Amino acid sequence: MRADMINSVLSELNGSSADIEASGVVSTDGLMIASQLPAGMDEDRVGAMSAAMLSLGDRTASELARGDLEQVLIKGKNGYVLMAYAGENAVVTVITKSSAKLGLIFLDIKRATQDIAKLL
Amino acid sequence: MRADMINSVLSELNGSSADIEASGVVSTDGLMIASQLPAGMDEDRVGAMSAAMLSLGDRTASELARGDLEQVLIKGKNGYVLMAYAGENAVVTVITKSSAKLGLIFLDIKRATQDIAKLL
Repeated sequence: MRADMINSVLSELNGSSADIEASGVVSTDGLMIASQLPAGMDEDRVGAMSAAMLSLGDRTASELARGDLEQVLIKGKNGYVLMAYAGENAVVTVITKSSAKLGLIFLDIKRATQDIAKLL
Repeated sequence: MRADMINSVLSELNGSSADIEASGVVSTDGLMIASQLPAGMDEDRVGAMSAAMLSLGDRTASELARGDLEQVLIKGKNGYVLMAYAGENAVVTVITKSSAKLGLIFLDIKRATQDIAKLL
């Protein structure tokens, strides 16, 4: 099944680094397509915040002449939220600890978005 | 004058890399405090988008338990928009070309936000 294959890509992504706490695939309108979240993390909340950030990220990239949006990164004191497009209609959101090595995480997300884009 | 000193930090920031096209200091309510923008880039637009992204970034970091917001990064096909807090009431926004080396830019912004936080 397609959903199983997407979940398998997310599992592999989460397993690629101990710093990745959660990941999900969200449609650009904010509906969760698949997710691998720890207990206590609310799927709807991840979907809603991802869609809101993407929408404003799109607008910002466009208003400030940066071209089509590719990624959004939020750095908080306790970790990162990264979003990257998987095809045109969905994004992969990854939530990491503050110890995450960004270069590696960006690389892992790039692979995951390419795999997931093919499955959507 | 304080404004001159802030502008001088921004000039130095823009000069630190040919990939930095513009930079500004924006209060968290979206008013421009100082800016070094190229001709044709609208100051109000930079201020408004910075404030909107920060506000949603704050909310995202909080809802997804990442702690206090420190930075926001938007990657578009043609470049980056980076925002980082300078003290509690202002942010430095930097707009770069797509060729920017993120590690270097993050370092330069960190220095600039520390210098500007002292001046505010």
